[in-house]
Formats: sequence, structure tokens, C-alpha cells
Amino acid sequence: MVTETLVGKSIPRIDAAEIVTGSTSYTADILPRGTLFAKLVLSTRAHALIKRIDTSKALAHPGVMGVVTGEDAPKYLVGRFLKDRPMLAQGKVRFVGEPVAAVAAVDKDIAEQAADLIEVEYEDLPAVFDPEEAMGPNAPLVHLAGSRYLDGAQGWVEPKGNIRNDVIMRRGDPDKAFAECDIIYEDTYRTHPTHQGYIEPHAVVASVDSESRITLWASNKGQFIVRNIVSEAFDLPKSQVKVIVTKIGGDFGGKGTPWLECIAVLLSKKTGRPVKLVLSRREDIILASVRHASIIRLKVGAKKDGTLHALKGEIIFECGSYADGGGGMAGRASTLVGSYKIPNVETRGLAIYTNSGPRGHVRAPGAPAPTFAIESHIDMLAKKLEMDPWEFRLKNALGEGDYDPDGHSIMRNVGLIETITKAREYVHREFRRGPNRGIGIACSLWGHAVGPSAMISGAYVRIEDDGRVVLYTGVGDQGAGQRAVLAQIVANELHIQPNQVVIGPTDTASTPFENGSGGSMTTFRAGNSARFAAMDARTQLFEMAAERLEVGQDDLELANGRIHVKGSPDRGYTIAEMARHALDTRGVPILGTGVKEKQELLKSMEASKGIMDGPAFCTQVAEVEVDPETGQVTVLRFLAAHDVGFAINPSSVEGQLQGGVVFGLGYSLTEQIMTSEGRVLNPSLLDYRLLTAKDVPNIEVLCIEVPSSQGPYGAKGVAEPPVIPTAAAIANAVFDAVGVRITEIPINAERVMEALQKSQDGTEVACLS
Amino acid sequence: MVTETLVGKSIPRIDAAEIVTGSTSYTADILPRGTLFAKLVLSTRAHALIKRIDTSKALAHPGVMGVVTGEDAPKYLVGRFLKDRPMLAQGKVRFVGEPVAAVAAVDKDIAEQAADLIEVEYEDLPAVFDPEEAMGPNAPLVHLAGSRYLDGAQGWVEPKGNIRNDVIMRRGDPDKAFAECDIIYEDTYRTHPTHQGYIEPHAVVASVDSESRITLWASNKGQFIVRNIVSEAFDLPKSQVKVIVTKIGGDFGGKGTPWLECIAVLLSKKTGRPVKLVLSRREDIILASVRHASIIRLKVGAKKDGTLHALKGEIIFECGSYADGGGGMAGRASTLVGSYKIPNVETRGLAIYTNSGPRGHVRAPGAPAPTFAIESHIDMLAKKLEMDPWEFRLKNALGEGDYDPDGHSIMRNVGLIETITKAREYVHREFRRGPNRGIGIACSLWGHAVGPSAMISGAYVRIEDDGRVVLYTGVGDQGAGQRAVLAQIVANELHIQPNQVVIGPTDTASTPFENGSGGSMTTFRAGNSARFAAMDARTQLFEMAAERLEVGQDDLELANGRIHVKGSPDRGYTIAEMARHALDTRGVPILGTGVKEKQELLKSMEASKGIMDGPAFCTQVAEVEVDPETGQVTVLRFLAAHDVGFAINPSSVEGQLQGGVVFGLGYSLTEQIMTSEGRVLNPSLLDYRLLTAKDVPNIEVLCIEVPSSQGPYGAKGVAEPPVIPTAAAIANAVFDAVGVRITEIPINAERVMEALQKSQDGTEVACLS
Repeated sequence: MVTETLVGKSIPRIDAAEIVTGSTSYTADILPRGTLFAKLVLSTRAHALIKRIDTSKALAHPGVMGVVTGEDAPKYLVGRFLKDRPMLAQGKVRFVGEPVAAVAAVDKDIAEQAADLIEVEYEDLPAVFDPEEAMGPNAPLVHLAGSRYLDGAQGWVEPKGNIRNDVIMRRGDPDKAFAECDIIYEDTYRTHPTHQGYIEPHAVVASVDSESRITLWASNKGQFIVRNIVSEAFDLPKSQVKVIVTKIGGDFGGKGTPWLECIAVLLSKKTGRPVKLVLSRREDIILASVRHASIIRLKVGAKKDGTLHALKGEIIFECGSYADGGGGMAGRASTLVGSYKIPNVETRGLAIYTNSGPRGHVRAPGAPAPTFAIESHIDMLAKKLEMDPWEFRLKNALGEGDYDPDGHSIMRNVGLIETITKAREYVHREFRRGPNRGIGIACSLWGHAVGPSAMISGAYVRIEDDGRVVLYTGVGDQGAGQRAVLAQIVANELHIQPNQVVIGPTDTASTPFENGSGGSMTTFRAGNSARFAAMDARTQLFEMAAERLEVGQDDLELANGRIHVKGSPDRGYTIAEMARHALDTRGVPILGTGVKEKQELLKSMEASKGIMDGPAFCTQVAEVEVDPETGQVTVLRFLAAHDVGFAINPSSVEGQLQGGVVFGLGYSLTEQIMTSEGRVLNPSLLDYRLLTAKDVPNIEVLCIEVPSSQGPYGAKGVAEPPVIPTAAAIANAVFDAVGVRITEIPINAERVMEALQKSQDGTEVACLS
Repeated sequence: MVTETLVGKSIPRIDAAEIVTGSTSYTADILPRGTLFAKLVLSTRAHALIKRIDTSKALAHPGVMGVVTGEDAPKYLVGRFLKDRPMLAQGKVRFVGEPVAAVAAVDKDIAEQAADLIEVEYEDLPAVFDPEEAMGPNAPLVHLAGSRYLDGAQGWVEPKGNIRNDVIMRRGDPDKAFAECDIIYEDTYRTHPTHQGYIEPHAVVASVDSESRITLWASNKGQFIVRNIVSEAFDLPKSQVKVIVTKIGGDFGGKGTPWLECIAVLLSKKTGRPVKLVLSRREDIILASVRHASIIRLKVGAKKDGTLHALKGEIIFECGSYADGGGGMAGRASTLVGSYKIPNVETRGLAIYTNSGPRGHVRAPGAPAPTFAIESHIDMLAKKLEMDPWEFRLKNALGEGDYDPDGHSIMRNVGLIETITKAREYVHREFRRGPNRGIGIACSLWGHAVGPSAMISGAYVRIEDDGRVVLYTGVGDQGAGQRAVLAQIVANELHIQPNQVVIGPTDTASTPFENGSGGSMTTFRAGNSARFAAMDARTQLFEMAAERLEVGQDDLELANGRIHVKGSPDRGYTIAEMARHALDTRGVPILGTGVKEKQELLKSMEASKGIMDGPAFCTQVAEVEVDPETGQVTVLRFLAAHDVGFAINPSSVEGQLQGGVVFGLGYSLTEQIMTSEGRVLNPSLLDYRLLTAKDVPNIEVLCIEVPSSQGPYGAKGVAEPPVIPTAAAIANAVFDAVGVRITEIPINAERVMEALQKSQDGTEVACLS
């Protein structure tokens, strides 16, 4: 009935002009009448009891309208996954920077002055920063013994000492298998915390009215998550909390837990006025839930013919003072298995509390570190086996019908081998080795968290009586253009131009529930919802047109925004005419909800439990040059060959992949939160060393399309995969260039130089720790 | 399946607390970031050519960000019914006060100063203010000969001279019939313009963004009408205009045409900033589309036995300079027939342009003036026939199956006789006559504009996963509590407490199209829509529950927010549980739209064309005392006996009826826009003389319930009917008290005194004109 033509085309984003001209409103631009400005008071201690907070001088300061401390906050603990964090410190601080109080004043400067007037008396407690030390029997406890916290997946959990989570995965008999191996390679890897690096810091405006209804403007990608947590925290019906998500200036996993939102609500309740709370860059770096540091011990054995046979690995994730999503990281230890068939495996993941700042989700949470380890290992094994690293990977690569690394699901529509062969072909043609110049390969997997529970996401498609179409979606757009892709899908299903579709209001009061962007799932989940809603609207149009034209629905076709009788283009109506007709005959506009279609997808997913449909594999290749005098690594070329399932908007997909590689390069080469006794030493983008345009090479992209049977038009997720193997590709390229193995990232000049010096001292493989 | 229990109960309004505590936001409270303040420049001439507008001094004034004149405006003419009014005067002004320019500045005072700096050079034209003069052959033309305007009902129309509309209705043979009458009474009546008297003046905030998308906060009861007119005026898709209706501080017909909105949009386009335009009280009285002045000539004949036999009447409505809804007034001349069976009738209605300010809709537009005439006549005829006025009315009263006064429709579910007999019973028991103290009766009819085209109105009912219910309705609430009644209906259908229902966003982007409040139709139209949407949601709940409980839907019942198996209260689920189940199994929340139910109502309406179901009749009785020394009329008691069909919320209905009578009393006794050569002499509420609480007697209400078969639960409209017969009841009571007939309203002391003096001079019936 419909010719699909719009998907698969690179259409400009519908919101591009307003973003690049600077007219888009971000949360910091929101200023309701009577808004107060808030400032946080941050803990100066890593671990201490709060003996006394004296707010009297601040309250006496002219222009100050209210102060809140932990005593004003409900006992409710905040967290998107694990609820273990008070809104404001209650009785105790657990990291340097933890908010202990907040001030609201008529002016930003006054708020800052008043924050300085708040006196906090602490009694220091012993603190622990090293996760291995924290696991020791006599380590200071970050959370009191007996603390019980609610975890979204596990229910009530109780940390054992500082061990938040401990997950072991085992299959086959690794101990026996290692004895059968011809070659075994073992090493230890380290990674450090990195910030999400979004340009817009955390920001919120909260307004609580006289009826306790809360309106929140939040730079948060999950408006319904915010709504649910805030309504729970303040014991309100969900419908009494309205979350308006403005444009988001980057998220990368960091904007999912509404702790800042809760503080703003507290202040608004206290003052009866709207309150704006925007973090400074310094505060944002200190307070953000950055990527976990990790220590990885990995041992892999293979047979002479190049068959991987046994693996044992342990990864310790440092969760900082509040774990939230960090507990889940322990489960990601299975990523140590990489993209390969290994029959005998044991992995252990540990998530450990320390007195560092909170750790949380960063683009592809939990995946880059273990991938850095296994893909470095793969190259070392290939070298020891004297095999071509391409061949070694192809020999062991996961394929159609294999189990996923967890061993839980059979994978379907697997594109790993295609990404390797296409990448090899490209690299052989285009990349060059040379003196101090090498090529490094790395593969990786991102398994969608696909399943009925992850698919709770609705969309409405309403047809206005001028034929324009409004899409209602609760998807937060973190800057990647997700909403534009959804509009493209709707336009495609209704056979109209993309600019005929507008995005309706996206707040929680106007759209159906949506799980929130994350896990590279937006296009997969919300794209399906938008598509189904458009299909439903289209069905209604066909039904009405068939009745009006007195023909069967099968006799009709839709083209260029018009439904007409097949073969008689004159006999028909435009969508606008049908929308007007719907108003006249039904009294209400056409609204597509896609309930039926969605239900069918959920049923088919339920029926295919144990099958992972369309994992997102990729192969990345770096060509680097290492300056032997300084250790400086320069990335000359970079290839990202990704199985994207189907590229609905190829230029958007390319943008996501390129952006992801840049993110991965920062993680590989320069970025690191430096601390001393829990105090962040480099809380500015300059010192933290985010990559700039000047640092980034041309990033070449190959989109391989092995369609998923469940994603819209076959699409798979593309947001997180490009971040995952980058560090390993760089490390392998450095090894290829100068023969030293770097096992700690970022791979900065200092580390490379040290390795080069050690190597000249006679050590073949430098192993820093 | 469901026990209906909540309708028919007096439940407090869900928004009462925030209104009475002053925390509600009205349009003037809206202040987007960067808002500019606007001021209008008003014409000082009644009719003149604009030779030149010099804005240079205003533009040079510091803080002024932009000025617009008619030259900046599109040629589009504004009007809700007839489009005959430029946004800003173009080439010519037609009344004293017509906006010729507007200034936007960073501050209200600066805007006012700058408005004073704008120089307008006029060339005066002859003007006309008296509608009868305006009908003369040599009268100055308010609109140039050949002007063609678009009328919503009539299509393109062209005024004939100053005659905008001329409607004649005839049945039987009145000329012959008068010859058959035993008694004939003839008189002339006059009414003057009155303001709607809302407390909140016209206000708007307009914000046009860089993509030409318009956001409007408007104190306007018809957000979709505003959206459609603004999008038409500025040539934009409807979806690019978002109208947010804040709380409205009274409307009474005056807030339906978005001319002020258009001026604010012009200024926002010009300046690139949000613009707020709030009229002062003086401006609002001068610029509002007030009630038409009228001149009525009426002749009615009856037979000796009291049978009304013939009627001839003419009413001239003065439309002012811009007619908008005024053209339609001519059709209301048939209201001269009143509530009675009269076989031989001829009425003529004329709508005439003059150089007075614009005239428009005021609560029960076009009905109070002719009712004042016919009901005064009825009492005079009764007196001449020496019949009891109750009996005379009962003898001629319209009843079940009679044609409406227009002669177009057969009326069903007619409650007139019940209102007369119940009122008589009450008055005989409670009211007292005495020296200078009399009782006056008047009846009236308000026929709903019911029909499929008036029923375009949608509602959505969404069930949140905590069991709370959100109603999406596009109904603007002008202060009468319409939305609260809709919530009550939804709660009733879902058998939950009213506070479990919240009203969702009400802007045009979030709700389905709705025709806008008006014509006492809100509860009728939108109440049906809300009910149907709730029924649809309920059906979905039953379907899901039946499947889950493995029983038939008929085996289930809904009570106290829970669906359970009949006879087994333990076997069931709460609405919250079912809502959660819907998310899990369908991926999207339950959304009731009521499309099917609405379609059935529209079909049944279409099938019953020619039938007016449930006209709203009433009988009002005044007990007054007249001070013979001063002519001052004091209303001692007042009874309003109304057929309301069914009172969904009796205390709301009572409030509407009492408020309506107060409105009618102001119209009867004190209110009048005084002018001299088109210049308003009393542009303040003090001089205009709105009634105060002190002036108002206890108003007793009798709700008679003759259910409509189409309204929700049988409800009929109650907003406009109470305004209609009040003036006649007062005039009849004055006559009863002191024997003088007042034929011009307001019936102030001056007019009564003059009549008393004339009566002492020997005239039995004083007839001022």
C-alpha cells in the first residue's frame, strides 16, 4: 500500500538550524518569573561526620531567600539503578565535593557569597581511595555495615564491607583447559576515571506551586525517570510532577540520575519560588558520576592452531562513594571474553565503594575497559602464535547462532565477521605502516538490552487538519538528533516530506511513558513506537478513505501525502482532507497510538526469549605514529567499521560513529580525572584535557548492514559501540609502531616514553602498573 | 458494570484553593526571559484617513526595541465570525480608540512614553454613530462600498451601505392575523452597549522564535480558534502556532477574537523577543467588543381568551465599526417571539455599522434585548386582558414537540412549563407585594447550537501507572469551573475520587482540537467528549482485566478504583495495577479517546436533524421596591427557576445561575457605556458602574431537571440563560410596584423618576425613547 522511500536517506536534522544559530533554549536559559539562583556548599572532606552546620550568617545575608541542608531533605535516597545517595549529606560526607547545603538567593553572586558564609564543622573519619585497599578486612567502611539499599534489578541489597557487587560467570572448565593450551598470556591493565565531557553542565530549574505540584526543567535524558524518582522522593502522585526536558547539550550517560533536581525542588519548596541551579564547570567535574576506574587481571590461553581455549579474568570497578549504576558494572566483567568463541571461561567482576566522587554511566558503561584488555591480549597472542591478527580474530570470531559472551542468549543477525573483512580490505588498500608508524585493530560487541521490559515506550501521531503531522514522543534528545530520526520514520510511513512532521511537546505531561534514552536504544525502542503510531494513523486514514471512496482498502495507495484509488490518481483525498473529514465525522482528530503493533512486537520478543537479535559488533583500526623522542602518539588515520543493522539516516549514523570515536580517542590518549586523597586536581576542561578538533584525525566510517529483525527497518544501536574498542586499537597500533605494550590508559606521552625507556633497558613488553 | 455515583453531587472545584489563595497564574503573570512590554497608540478620531505616522522619535527613545503600524501587518483581516478588522488600522481609522501603532520596549513605562512620542496625522471624515441615521441614504460609509469580507457562516459578504446584515423571518400571515386580534399592544424599546465586566483585562504574551514558530499565552477561551486565526494571518502551518491558555479571569463572551494576539505577534516578529501586551482598564473598556446597542419596535396581538395570535417586530443592532459576531445578531431577531406559541409572525433583524467601537459577543449575545421587549409586552397584554401573568404565560408557553421560535426545529425535552409552575409555587409562598413594591416575571429560551459541526471536540484520558488519571481537554476555563466538571465526569466513569483526576496540559499542542467554550456548550460538548474518553479507557481496562482474570467482561464490576469479579471482591486488580500491566504488556499506557462513542453521538445527531434536543428555558421573578422620591429601584428578592437538564455539580450550576443573574441585574439597573461622538465617557469600572456585592440581593435558585437526551447525563447549558430574562423581570416588577413601564435599560433612578413624573402628568404608561 505504501512505498517506503524516506528511510535510508541522509536528511538534514529538523532542529539543525536553531542549534547552530544559537537560538535553542537550554535549561540554563529558562527563567520563570521570580526565579531564585542557587549555589551548593560542597564538602571539603573525603570522609567525615557533620557535627554542626551554621546557616545563620547566610540567612542573614541580604537577598538570601532560603537555605537547605540534609535535615530539610526526606530520608529518601536517590539513584537511577541503586538508591544509595542522599540528596544532601545527612550526618556524614563520603567524598570531597559532596553537597552539604544549598542556598537560594535573588541573584547568583549573592547566592555564592551566602554559600561561603555557611559554616560546617566536621569530624574526620579514615578514608579509603584505592579499591584494592578498600576490599581489605580493616578498610574504613564507606557505607555503614548493615546499610540496605534498593536496587532496580536486584531488589534490596547490602554491601559486604565495601564490596557493592561481586559477579562470577563460569562455563566449561578453565583450570583444566589452561593445561590443554599451547600458549598462555597474562597481564594486568588499569584505567582511570573519565568525565562524560558534555559541554552543558548539569542544570535544573524547579518550581513547586502552592498545591505541591512540581514543574522541573531538567537537562536530563530520562524525563520519566526524573518524574518517577522526584514523585517518589517527595511522596507525590506521578501526575503531580511535570518534567520538561529542554534541549540537552550532551549527556553521554551522565544525565540520568536526578540528584541535582531533588536539591532544586527542596529549595523551591522552602522558598515558594522557582529555583535555578546550574553547576559551574568545576562543580560539574567534581560532582558528575564519572567513569569507573578499573584494575583488570586477564589470562587467556590458545592452542597452536590459533583456537582460543581458556580465559580467566577479574575486573575491579571502583564505584566511588555512591554506586548507582556502578553495581551493574560487575556484571560487565563478561565483556572480558570479547567478541570471541572461548569454551572455557571464568570472569569475576567486583564493584567497590571508595571515598572518591560518585561513579556512574559513561557512554558504553563498563565495556571499554575490559575490551581494552582482551583486545590487547588478542594481539599479543597473535604475535606469540605468529599469526596475522586479522586471521586470528576471524578464526575465533562469534558468528550467527553462537551464544553471547554471557552465555545467556543465542545471537542472531551477527555482523562481526563482515566488519572484520570489510575493515581488512579497506585497511590493506588505504592504511600504511612505516618507521614508528603502526596499525592496530580491535573488535567489540554491544549487546542491546532488548526485551519487553526495555520496550516500554509510547508514541502518538496526530494528524492536524492542515495535513501536518505531530509526533508525541517522550524521548530526550541529548544532541544526537534522535527526535529528527523519529520524525523521518513518521514521514516515511505517511509518505510525506520530513518537514511536514513536527515534534510535539516532549514533557512528561504530554507524552506517553518512555524509558529514557540510553543503551543505544533510542532509535530501536522509540523508533519502533513512532513507526507503529504512524502505521496506526495510516490504517485509520485508509479505513476512512475506503469508506468514503466506496472501495476496499487494498484498492488504495498512499503517495506524496495523498490516498487515491490504485490506477485512478484523481479519485482520492489528501491527508489534510482526510484529517478534516475525521474532525467532521468523528469529532476528534486522527491519533495513531500503535498499541496493537507494539503489543505484537512485545509478544514476539517474549516468544524469542533467549535470543539476542542483532548485537552491534564493530571493528576499528588505528594508524598511529609515535615520536620516539617524546612518546607522543599521533593518530594519523582511523577506521570505524560498524554493523549498524540499517542506517535510517546515514549521515546521522556517520556522525554518531565519528563522535563516538572522538570520545574513545579522548579516553585512549588524554582524558583522566586526577585526584589526591580524593580531591580532584584538574577540575577544568583545559587541565582535564578534552580533545579538541585539532587533535582529531579524519575518521573513516564503514556502515555494514546486517539487519536486526526487531529494530525499525532493521536498525541497531550506534551510539555506544564506537567508544568501546578505540583504546585497544590505539594500544595495538602503538605496539605495532614501536613494540611496547601499554597497559594503562590514557596512553599519554609520559607513559609511552617510560615504556620505551624500559624496553630499551631490555624488557620486551613494558607493563606499567 | 459501573455504578455511577459522583455526578449530581456538589464537589468542590479542584482548582478552587489556588484561585482563592491567589497563586494561580494569569496571562499578565507570564514573563518569559527577555520579555518586552508593549503599549498601543489609539486613534483620537472617530473616522479619519491616516495621512502619516511618524515613529522616529519613539524609535530613538532609549529602551524602545520596536514599533509596528498597519504597514507592518499582513493584509489579513481578523474576526472569529466575520473577518472585517485589520490588526492595526490600515490607511483609515473607524472609531475613537482604534489601534494605529504599537511599541515594544524593555519596560512598561518606557513603552508608554514612546507611545506618546508617535505622531499621527489624520484627515477627518464625516462619522455616524446612530444606527438609524447610518441606515439613511446619505450616511457616511464606515466600510467602503464594495468591501467584501469573509463570514464563517455566510461565506463572502458585502455590506449594503452600512447594513451588515438584514434577516427576515416570517410564518403565517401576520397582517391578516392582526385584524383577527381582540387586543394589540405596540411599543419601542432601547438598550445600550454594556461591557462584559470581566476582572482580568485582555492580555497576551507572544513569542516568535527564529524558526517562525509562535508561542502565545493568551487570555482567550478558544485556544484553537486563536491558533487557527494566527496561523492563517501569518501564513503558517497550524502546528507551528502553540497557544497556551492560562487561567482566564472572566470572559463572558469578550475573549474570543485574537486581534490583540496578532498585534503582539507582529511586535515579537519585529523585535525577535517575547512581547507582553496587557490592556489597562481604560483601554479594555474602549477596545473591548461590547454588547450591541439596540432599538426594538414590537407589536403583538392576542385574542380575548388570552391566545397570542400575531407578532411583528424589528430589532436594529448597532454593530459599531467592526461587526465580527455582530452580523449574526440579526438572526436573533426571532428571539422577539419569546417562549410562546404564536402562529403568525414576522421579525426583522438588522445589523448596522457605525463609527462606534467594535461590538461583539457578550453572555447570551442577542438574546436579552429582544427578551426585554417581548416579556415586557407579555405583561402589558396580560394587564389589558385582565389575566394573571402566570396564567397568560402558561396558556401560550412552548411545550414538548412545538417548533422553536425560528420555526426550524421541533423541540424535545422542553421544561418551560415546569419552570413557570415551580416558580409560581415558590413566589406565591415566599414573595410579597406591598406599597411601591411589586413582583415581575419573565421567561426565556436559550437554544443550544447543537449539531455535529458544533461537536468537534476531543478529549484523551490517560491512566498513569500509579492509577492517577490525566484528562487532556482543550477547553479554556473562563472561571466557571468547566474543567473541574469534566474531571468529575471522568472520575464518575472510572469510579474513582475526583482528586484522582488531574487536568493535563491544555495548550493546542497537547490536546485534541476543541471548538472553544461558548454558547453555554462546554459541559454539553466537552463533557460528552471527556465522558466518552473515560468510557473508552474503562472498556480497555475491562478487556485487559477479563483476559488476565480469565472471565468474561460481563462478569466484572468496577468499584472504588478496582475491577473485580462480581461476587468475588478478592479476585481483581486496582486501576493502578492494570495500568502497570498495560505498560508491561502493550508498552504504552492506556489512553482513552472515545472516538467510537463520539462518532455514534454525531451519527445520531445527524439522524435527528430538525430536532432541538433540550432547549434551556427558564423563569425568573424579581421582587423590587421603588423609592417614589428618587426613582431608585431596590431588588429585594430574586428567583431563578431554570431547566438545567441535569446538574452534574449542583453547587457549580447554582453558582453559574446566581452569577448570571448578577450579570443580568447589572445590565438591567446600572451598566452602560456612555459615549459622545463615539468617545467613551466612562472608561472605568467606577463610572461604568458594575454592580458590587452590596448591590446584589439574595438570589434563590430552583434547578428543574428535564434531561436532554444528548447532553452528558442529560445536562443542558446554564451559563447564558440566567442573563436573558432578568431585565424584563425587573421592568415588570417596577411596573407592578409603581405602575410605570420603563422601555429603556438600564432602569436607573433617573429613568424611573422621569417616568413617574410623566405618569403623574396623566400618562398611564410611560414610554421613554
